[in-house]
Amino acid sequence: MNNLIYAVPVAGLIGLAFSVYRYRSIASEDPGTEVMKMLAARIRAGAMAFLRAEYSVMLGFILVVAGLMYLSGLSEGSHPLIALAFVIGALFSGLAGFFGMRVATLANVRTAAAARRGLAPALLIAFGGGSVMGLTVVGLGILGLGGLFLIFGRILGTDATSIKQLTTVLTGFSFGASSVALFARLGGGIYTKAADVGADLVGKVEAGIPEDHPLNPATIADNVGDNVGDVAGMGADLFESFVGAIVGAMVLGAALALKSEFTGSMGGLSAVILPLLLGAAGVVCSVFGTFFVTGDDNVDPARALNRGELLAAVAMLIASYLIIVGVLPEKWVAPEGFEVTRMGVFWSSIIGLGAGMAIGFVTEYYTGTGRRPVVEIVEQSVTGAATNVIAGLGVGMLSTAIPMLLIAFAILGAYELAGLYGIAIAAVGMLSNTGIQLAVDAYGPIADNAGGIAEMSGLPKDVRGRTDQLDAVGNTTAAIGKGFAIGSAALTALALFSAYMTTAGLKTIDVANPRVMCGLFIGAMMPFLFSAMAMRAVGRAATSMIAEVRRQFREVPILRQALEVCQRNGHSSMDTWSDADRSVMSQALEKVDSDSCIAISTKASLREMVLPGILAVVGPVGAGFLGGGEMLGGLLAGVTVSGVMLAIFQSNAGGAWDNAKKMIEGGVTVNGVEYRKGSTAHAAAVVGDTVGDPFKDTSGPSLNILLKLVSVAALVIAPWLAVPATPAVPPQAAPAEAAVPVEAAAPENAVAAPAAAANPFQIPC
Amino acid sequence: MNNLIYAVPVAGLIGLAFSVYRYRSIASEDPGTEVMKMLAARIRAGAMAFLRAEYSVMLGFILVVAGLMYLSGLSEGSHPLIALAFVIGALFSGLAGFFGMRVATLANVRTAAAARRGLAPALLIAFGGGSVMGLTVVGLGILGLGGLFLIFGRILGTDATSIKQLTTVLTGFSFGASSVALFARLGGGIYTKAADVGADLVGKVEAGIPEDHPLNPATIADNVGDNVGDVAGMGADLFESFVGAIVGAMVLGAALALKSEFTGSMGGLSAVILPLLLGAAGVVCSVFGTFFVTGDDNVDPARALNRGELLAAVAMLIASYLIIVGVLPEKWVAPEGFEVTRMGVFWSSIIGLGAGMAIGFVTEYYTGTGRRPVVEIVEQSVTGAATNVIAGLGVGMLSTAIPMLLIAFAILGAYELAGLYGIAIAAVGMLSNTGIQLAVDAYGPIADNAGGIAEMSGLPKDVRGRTDQLDAVGNTTAAIGKGFAIGSAALTALALFSAYMTTAGLKTIDVANPRVMCGLFIGAMMPFLFSAMAMRAVGRAATSMIAEVRRQFREVPILRQALEVCQRNGHSSMDTWSDADRSVMSQALEKVDSDSCIAISTKASLREMVLPGILAVVGPVGAGFLGGGEMLGGLLAGVTVSGVMLAIFQSNAGGAWDNAKKMIEGGVTVNGVEYRKGSTAHAAAVVGDTVGDPFKDTSGPSLNILLKLVSVAALVIAPWLAVPATPAVPPQAAPAEAAVPVEAAAPENAVAAPAAAANPFQIPC
Repeated sequence: MNNLIYAVPVAGLIGLAFSVYRYRSIASEDPGTEVMKMLAARIRAGAMAFLRAEYSVMLGFILVVAGLMYLSGLSEGSHPLIALAFVIGALFSGLAGFFGMRVATLANVRTAAAARRGLAPALLIAFGGGSVMGLTVVGLGILGLGGLFLIFGRILGTDATSIKQLTTVLTGFSFGASSVALFARLGGGIYTKAADVGADLVGKVEAGIPEDHPLNPATIADNVGDNVGDVAGMGADLFESFVGAIVGAMVLGAALALKSEFTGSMGGLSAVILPLLLGAAGVVCSVFGTFFVTGDDNVDPARALNRGELLAAVAMLIASYLIIVGVLPEKWVAPEGFEVTRMGVFWSSIIGLGAGMAIGFVTEYYTGTGRRPVVEIVEQSVTGAATNVIAGLGVGMLSTAIPMLLIAFAILGAYELAGLYGIAIAAVGMLSNTGIQLAVDAYGPIADNAGGIAEMSGLPKDVRGRTDQLDAVGNTTAAIGKGFAIGSAALTALALFSAYMTTAGLKTIDVANPRVMCGLFIGAMMPFLFSAMAMRAVGRAATSMIAEVRRQFREVPILRQALEVCQRNGHSSMDTWSDADRSVMSQALEKVDSDSCIAISTKASLREMVLPGILAVVGPVGAGFLGGGEMLGGLLAGVTVSGVMLAIFQSNAGGAWDNAKKMIEGGVTVNGVEYRKGSTAHAAAVVGDTVGDPFKDTSGPSLNILLKLVSVAALVIAPWLAVPATPAVPPQAAPAEAAVPVEAAAPENAVAAPAAAANPFQIPC
Repeated sequence: MNNLIYAVPVAGLIGLAFSVYRYRSIASEDPGTEVMKMLAARIRAGAMAFLRAEYSVMLGFILVVAGLMYLSGLSEGSHPLIALAFVIGALFSGLAGFFGMRVATLANVRTAAAARRGLAPALLIAFGGGSVMGLTVVGLGILGLGGLFLIFGRILGTDATSIKQLTTVLTGFSFGASSVALFARLGGGIYTKAADVGADLVGKVEAGIPEDHPLNPATIADNVGDNVGDVAGMGADLFESFVGAIVGAMVLGAALALKSEFTGSMGGLSAVILPLLLGAAGVVCSVFGTFFVTGDDNVDPARALNRGELLAAVAMLIASYLIIVGVLPEKWVAPEGFEVTRMGVFWSSIIGLGAGMAIGFVTEYYTGTGRRPVVEIVEQSVTGAATNVIAGLGVGMLSTAIPMLLIAFAILGAYELAGLYGIAIAAVGMLSNTGIQLAVDAYGPIADNAGGIAEMSGLPKDVRGRTDQLDAVGNTTAAIGKGFAIGSAALTALALFSAYMTTAGLKTIDVANPRVMCGLFIGAMMPFLFSAMAMRAVGRAATSMIAEVRRQFREVPILRQALEVCQRNGHSSMDTWSDADRSVMSQALEKVDSDSCIAISTKASLREMVLPGILAVVGPVGAGFLGGGEMLGGLLAGVTVSGVMLAIFQSNAGGAWDNAKKMIEGGVTVNGVEYRKGSTAHAAAVVGDTVGDPFKDTSGPSLNILLKLVSVAALVIAPWLAVPATPAVPPQAAPAEAAVPVEAAAPENAVAAPAAAANPFQIPC
């Protein structure tokens, strides 16, 4: 191992230093008028209050699990330090969410203020906020993994035999990150949709006030929701993906370290350290890319963002090649039994990158405005809500086909090129540019929030126009980001699956084994159950929100008065109103109790996220201890396959419905008739969009995390489930298995210990 | 082999003779008034025209596949006779649909006529019609299988070595049945929903005429649809299930026949013949049960039907015990390597029966009127269509949990008791009473049709009341029937999966093998793609139907006039109208062009069923030949798991939406407010119900067949994919595999032929 390893935590520190620098420059920007500052302060306070409440709920969970992790660390092949790694992983994930939220709630109002000056300054602040988020996430991820690798390496040793233990301990870091991510995504997703549905159904539909109007008590909660769901939730999600992919590749790299003939420039550990180096390079390339997102007042935001991403990708490509060639030996024999070259590893990372982008483009096709599938939903909206919903469900289901084929062939290709390690490296390749990818993703909700603040504080229409322009660009990039998230989740889950088998000492997970089949059925059911729980949670939380908003309009007379005043003045700017009207409005605005709405969303989301969260951990642990390592293996395969499918289906159906609604709002012509906002077709499209909301913002993205959390949980308990080196059946019977019919070997034992029988379905004929 | 084997075709003949006897007695009943006869003749003509068109489309498919089957029969382990078996299977399935349809279109009008006299005669005719259908299906199934077993047995031999070939040839019969079933279910499902949605959306909603009104051109097509979808489609479906379960068990029984120490009262073939004998006993027990569905004018239809089913089940229980004890030896060592007793086999069949019933009750809970989940949907309908749809999707997803656990534990239990053979026998146990089960199922659409004829021919309200009473009872029994269908599909698919492995000579289907994982992903995607195709097909067909009905109302003035006349007379009985009004009505009725609607539904459904049908066959065949036997194995597991899940989700969501709508139509109180037909909550519930229509009647039930068809297709091509007895790698390397690390053995070969490497993921550490 040479000194290059120290570059890993250093790259993490570079990312964090860049974040701090950018954070400060955003903080020094003009936060706008007094009203804007007041609104921003409320959103910030609500978001931070939610985070505090969420983290305190999680704390209990984390302490309990840390205790269990400590116990699991006592088993052979692991170490009690895994509990510490778990806590640090959870802490770092929490920190990433915390800083992301802080900068997002700082950047939103400053973006709105800058939009008064022009498009370019607004773009720079919004993207700047996103890049603080993005680089905090990858910086903390690589600092945490690199630092723990170095520190724990000193304690446990980094020779070929102790590396397995070291990588097992690092899975604790990944598990901590996944646990926090699940709660953040799920809690945030429930929060944001409850507030959104509540604000829309009562505010817009019943009371007839426009979106983001300050008289709607749920408006602040809705804007808080954008931050807790789309910023903190997504940040924790990608932190977990980034860390999970790297850890999965490290565990599989450890299998190479044990082979005496394998050696690279980092010695036997080259394959273990490579994923860390790729991640570190990704941090630096992301920082590099952000400098190219610039422009003057005629800037095309989409081009500016694409330029940054593209240059970061090219830099990463070159860096990958140099690192892989510099670190790995030219060729070696993989543990899977065939020869592998370092170029094969490089091409695997390219396959990962390519598959991620291809899935992104397919996602964009099925959900993009003006594309055939969305146009079909628009056409079916004319005949009513039912046909709109059927069309959207059809598009969502159809859209699973190509991504699944892409994932399937990426698996096969990466394996043929570089074995299991190749699959893991493909996942790392997909995610290496997470920093700038997340910067672009997080830019979306910041622009969205800026628009909300512009609306609520009564800024001129052209300011809102600029923020809308920024927001619209976010949709395509978000679709591509989603493609990466789903594709990498599938590959990472597979890498973790293989790592689980290695750690548990399982030679096969044979589907023909009824225990495996049983696990497969239960595993495939989990994402359905989890989605059902998430959707029902949104339903219940939204119902509470609806009741509260109705209560305020019923019990506070001045609210209804102010509403009449607004309508009488045609929702024009308050400057043109009479003094009496303005006075009513000011009084009403003081009476609007947005805090109670925030409290409802916070409480509901925290309450509702517990049960699905427990399911995600108890499911695999229960299956492992009650049904054995093979049943757990089946469960993992089932969760992965069905989870990826449902995630694609739900995300794309939701996205397609959303854009079908937007198309109709912009005006469409079907069979010679024109439809726009307020038409029956629009009403039908609103139904589809509302159905899609929990699909695409709550259960869909949470499934990505679920399938990795389940895999990591399995990996963590794997040493406990490990098949002992000395089999329970008489040792002389075991090697005979392959040569003579099974029934000849200890048939009585097999019923008592079916998990130990390697191939119960093996029929000699 | 003793003479008991001849009891099998004899039981089939008994079932058919009983059908003929019942058919004749129904035909001799009074067919009612001239109008009723005319309407019934139209429905019958439409249904028969559809069948003829459908069968001629299928004929091409069957000839092509028969040719391919002939070729496949030339491979070692099979025989060209498999093509003949395939054609006979397809023919028998077609015959079952044909006779079922004939009797259903005879019984519907006679049920309506008998309902004028009272409830009991109507019940007896409707159930009589159902039992002709039920016993034709099982009679043909057991006659076909038993007859082919005897005849082909003479040609191929029935000694221990040729039995494997014989059972492989019999899989052709099952494949023929599955192919016809898929087209029948899918074509019928598209037909019925296109007509239903067309009749509802334009007729009821736009033109404002009641359901089943003769002025609606799509009404006859709608009633034809009930027959082609719910009668012919379901008949072919259960024919396929019944045959598939028995064949799967026979193939696994053949593995026992090869073991010299296994012998029962039928010699080594006891385990092969047992499933046939159980099926034969089921036919006789079903006939026995039908005699107890009787009653006087105070009859409670639900009790009468339950009595028949219960007594048939008790008889079957006793028969199973006697047959199993009489045929099997007391104990033996299963090919899986542990000891199995005949009581274990008996208990496996009970586990199957119990799991089927339990799934039925769970289905009833999640979809039953007045049950908590349906009440929740009703409550969420108050806030609009979006919340209704979200609630229904949530209930559907939630409802997968318990059935999946039941299936998983049934698999595990049956395996522990009697090995793989136990799983297959559990499926046979679930389906042994298919005869009476189907009689009760098919009774539903007959009663439904009788109601339609009563309405269209203007019979008094109390007649319609009686047919509605008969119809309502069908819902619960249909739910339980659905539980059996899904549960048995899962178990049968597993039995076929094991049979596939045996035939293809695959020792393991290791999920850790990337080819298997690739197959798993592609397989899991197929049901989503298939569902999307089916749903979009319904959408397109319904659009054509809507256009045609609108055209008729636009281009035929007398139709609009008659509509006004009807509305002016408040849709009262024509007897009270003025002569002028009556004359307008008669003229209009002659102008209603229901044939064009029938032609549209027929053409659309035949066109739309082809692509999904091809997918079902090309998918597995392509994966098998391009990706190898292991990828196909992964695909089978993926299709089974994801197919069962989606089938339960879709069927139950659809059922729950349907009953939520019915509950609101009957009047409900939510939060102190009353809602009934015509309320906003009802409008919301209609949206959910319409979304659920293609779910529960088109894609959901077709998925059951899809997963078996895919499994049977795999089984048919398995001999082609069989791993040669002499491995491609040097023989001395193969036995060494288990003892030494894989990479020591011929690493260069492994890249070139990865399918041949048993465990590519096997990492030594």
